[in-house]
Amino acid sequence: MTETMPGLENRRVILAARPKGVPGPEHFAVEDGPVPVPGPGQVLVRTAFWSVDPAMRGWVNDVPNYIPPVEIGAVMRSFAVGRVVASRHPGFAEGEIVTGLFGWQRYALVEGATIDRKVVETDLPQSLALGLLGLNGVTAYLGLTRVGAPEPGQMVLVSTAAGAVGSAVGQIAKLLGCRTVGVAGGPEKTALCRDVFGYDAAIDYKAGGLDAALAAACPDGWNVYFDNTCGPVSDAALHRMATGARWIICGTAAVTDWDPWPDGPRVHRALLVKRARMEGFLVLDHKDAYADAIARLAGWVRDGRIVWREHILDGAEAARDAIGMLYRGENTGKLLVRVD
Amino acid sequence: MTETMPGLENRRVILAARPKGVPGPEHFAVEDGPVPVPGPGQVLVRTAFWSVDPAMRGWVNDVPNYIPPVEIGAVMRSFAVGRVVASRHPGFAEGEIVTGLFGWQRYALVEGATIDRKVVETDLPQSLALGLLGLNGVTAYLGLTRVGAPEPGQMVLVSTAAGAVGSAVGQIAKLLGCRTVGVAGGPEKTALCRDVFGYDAAIDYKAGGLDAALAAACPDGWNVYFDNTCGPVSDAALHRMATGARWIICGTAAVTDWDPWPDGPRVHRALLVKRARMEGFLVLDHKDAYADAIARLAGWVRDGRIVWREHILDGAEAARDAIGMLYRGENTGKLLVRVD
Repeated sequence: MTETMPGLENRRVILAARPKGVPGPEHFAVEDGPVPVPGPGQVLVRTAFWSVDPAMRGWVNDVPNYIPPVEIGAVMRSFAVGRVVASRHPGFAEGEIVTGLFGWQRYALVEGATIDRKVVETDLPQSLALGLLGLNGVTAYLGLTRVGAPEPGQMVLVSTAAGAVGSAVGQIAKLLGCRTVGVAGGPEKTALCRDVFGYDAAIDYKAGGLDAALAAACPDGWNVYFDNTCGPVSDAALHRMATGARWIICGTAAVTDWDPWPDGPRVHRALLVKRARMEGFLVLDHKDAYADAIARLAGWVRDGRIVWREHILDGAEAARDAIGMLYRGENTGKLLVRVD
Repeated sequence: MTETMPGLENRRVILAARPKGVPGPEHFAVEDGPVPVPGPGQVLVRTAFWSVDPAMRGWVNDVPNYIPPVEIGAVMRSFAVGRVVASRHPGFAEGEIVTGLFGWQRYALVEGATIDRKVVETDLPQSLALGLLGLNGVTAYLGLTRVGAPEPGQMVLVSTAAGAVGSAVGQIAKLLGCRTVGVAGGPEKTALCRDVFGYDAAIDYKAGGLDAALAAACPDGWNVYFDNTCGPVSDAALHRMATGARWIICGTAAVTDWDPWPDGPRVHRALLVKRARMEGFLVLDHKDAYADAIARLAGWVRDGRIVWREHILDGAEAARDAIGMLYRGENTGKLLVRVD
């Protein structure tokens, strides 16, 4: 029998049913259980914030992906940040702050070797480790620089431009000397793009006239498109590429179901005529560069040159509809669950 | 008044009407006219062979492309090879063999500076300068190596695998140590793929069961796809990518009309999941590498390590339906017009 930690209760969110497309509250259940004691090499983490990310839709659908789907009855897979409360791994000590795929649970028992990183920016808010100083910021920085490779003066187009990744992309592109156009849904988010995240232009894709708005904002086309959405925004962007353009496929949030596989405008001829490139980017392939990216981002945070927004939900029950909220576009900033 | 060459007649094929999609005989007219005398810097070339290439469809359609469309009443734009009969450019002498965009005309008066190259492989057939030692071979070699960058042992998929470009791609990939699967239309072309061009496997896309045939030929997916077609072959290939795959968009022969812009399966999620890249390749962007590519290809030709097929039409009248023949797949080898 596994030994348990006395006096601790592990509240967790499990996947209760297999969704097709975006999961809703009916696909998750909250349950309580004991907290196991770490064995050799293991670390017990008390989580403080759980992350809610667009990729989590893909993790619960039973379609081909870069990792197997979460099993029914298992704790929902997610990134989280928290404090080490017990460690039998020589690399981690009690009290240290760590991030990793800890799941939606108050206490995560993990192999020390699977922990993503120790959070060393203890002067900055802990929740940043899941956003701008976590995979969102790293995705923005490495996707933009490694795949997009924008040059100063070039036009960078961003979809979900006010989101956790998009808002970082837009600001990083400006810091690298680019011009930026952000596409977001609704007047509130486009105002955020312009007034908070410093885009040169912002387009509300829900307002209609997307083609004309894009033509006005990028009269010479875009050089780099950081695509978080696929769908109508990308279909409009297809016809505004500049020669030699780079199209970073980071997410497909606007297409909620890939079974059956959906149709859209063929991209081939546009890529050929413009000698352009479309490339899928998965941040997990770029672990070699995380530390450098985070150090650069943390420097910009400390200098006040980059800003962020958070949208915080409280407690495990609120997590059940969190992915739905994200896909309905109801969050205003990086969506997080604060652990009770 | 322009001075003319006495005793010479210039038979030429002009674009008589604007086609939508693939041009037919009704879009071209044959006419005779005088042959002008070269002015300073100009060269007069007597053409021997005219090229017929898939890209020529795009050159006559009034849709956005990498060069403006051929004007109505103008000589049809094409590559050709021939002999210098008079020169007022210091770089070219009478009797030299040259290639360039000379058009479908018996005599081409061109600025010396616009000539693509002097054919130095005088030990090899002149027509090769339009095929394996011309843009077809260079396209195959540079598209495959610069965009595809296949590694030895990797799987290279080729569409229009028995065509002028495709047959070169398949053979070059084998010479570079890759495994190859060719897709072509009909039993005659797939037999050519296997027996003449050395593909490890050949698939007849007209025979049905394309998905299953592709799965059997590439059980671990393809690493590089040299895509000359778009359309159904590419739609099947979309779901057989290996992680990190490179998809070279070289042509879109299977989609005959881009007005209105056609739909097809969205590629975004497949590129993301496989961290794959799709990139348009236009050989004209790579002039810096032509000479090296041709030297390498000519070496393989002399060593008997690479083979080719030609399909030769005779005379200007035959040119009028030549692009149609190409798109109907009726040619068995590089399609050329021999000039009468």
